[in-house]
Amino acid sequence: MKPAIVTALLLAAALPTQAAPSAEDQIRFRKAAYSFISWNMGRIKEQVADGASYDPQQVQAAANAIAGVAGSGLGALFGPGTEQSVGAQKTRARPELFSNLPDVARLGQDFNKAAALLAEEAASGDKARVKAAFGQLGRSCKGCHDKYRGD
Amino acid sequence: MKPAIVTALLLAAALPTQAAPSAEDQIRFRKAAYSFISWNMGRIKEQVADGASYDPQQVQAAANAIAGVAGSGLGALFGPGTEQSVGAQKTRARPELFSNLPDVARLGQDFNKAAALLAEEAASGDKARVKAAFGQLGRSCKGCHDKYRGD
Repeated sequence: MKPAIVTALLLAAALPTQAAPSAEDQIRFRKAAYSFISWNMGRIKEQVADGASYDPQQVQAAANAIAGVAGSGLGALFGPGTEQSVGAQKTRARPELFSNLPDVARLGQDFNKAAALLAEEAASGDKARVKAAFGQLGRSCKGCHDKYRGD
Repeated sequence: MKPAIVTALLLAAALPTQAAPSAEDQIRFRKAAYSFISWNMGRIKEQVADGASYDPQQVQAAANAIAGVAGSGLGALFGPGTEQSVGAQKTRARPELFSNLPDVARLGQDFNKAAALLAEEAASGDKARVKAAFGQLGRSCKGCHDKYRGD
């Protein structure tokens, strides 16, 4: 199959069979997800800094949280009607995101994989490996933000 | 040891060794955590309803997300200065929460355990067992809300 078809299928597989929350709630929940991830990224960033004392338990807790959120099926929170701010919920998602869903699904899969790898490395307690996986996850975040997140 | 001492030690163990986010950010991140959990609780609630078709993958994704967030060390987001709303961040936490931290830590541990059990049952794919664990987790949420969450 062509890559575009594969990603379209992946996206379809990620779609929920359930009643979706309202567009406003979808934006609220996805913002909550990324906000919560940012706290945990910050915690790990401090831990892997050169010279910082490394607390494997803290890193593991933060990495597991990120992996859990990343693997939760966030694609379901980018449904129709969420292309722009709704009610009290402002979104920074660019319109381009919604016209490139197969690309977004691919980036989402990369993000999910990078988060799972970070959780795996965190369980090993090896600071150097965690630092490498953390860098990879950060690049995955940035890859999507640069393309699809506005100011 | 007396239970109060044990819970105080558990709380101390849950405290971060890292630089804490600002009080406003702590409130922002903890609200994000509970908001994101609420989405995932809603997803599982739909799945375990009588007569609903059960999608084990959806339930597992949602349960893993809840367990990851619950186990992330949320106690670190209830630091000094977060007893009331700060800047744009409104909090519904009651003042009683901050004068009963050992009790809150105990409820937090129960919540964490119930979330871990739900993730375990979700991995089994057994709807009845998931439903029981989901009910237990819901009661754990309510136990804390009734005591420490305002309107």
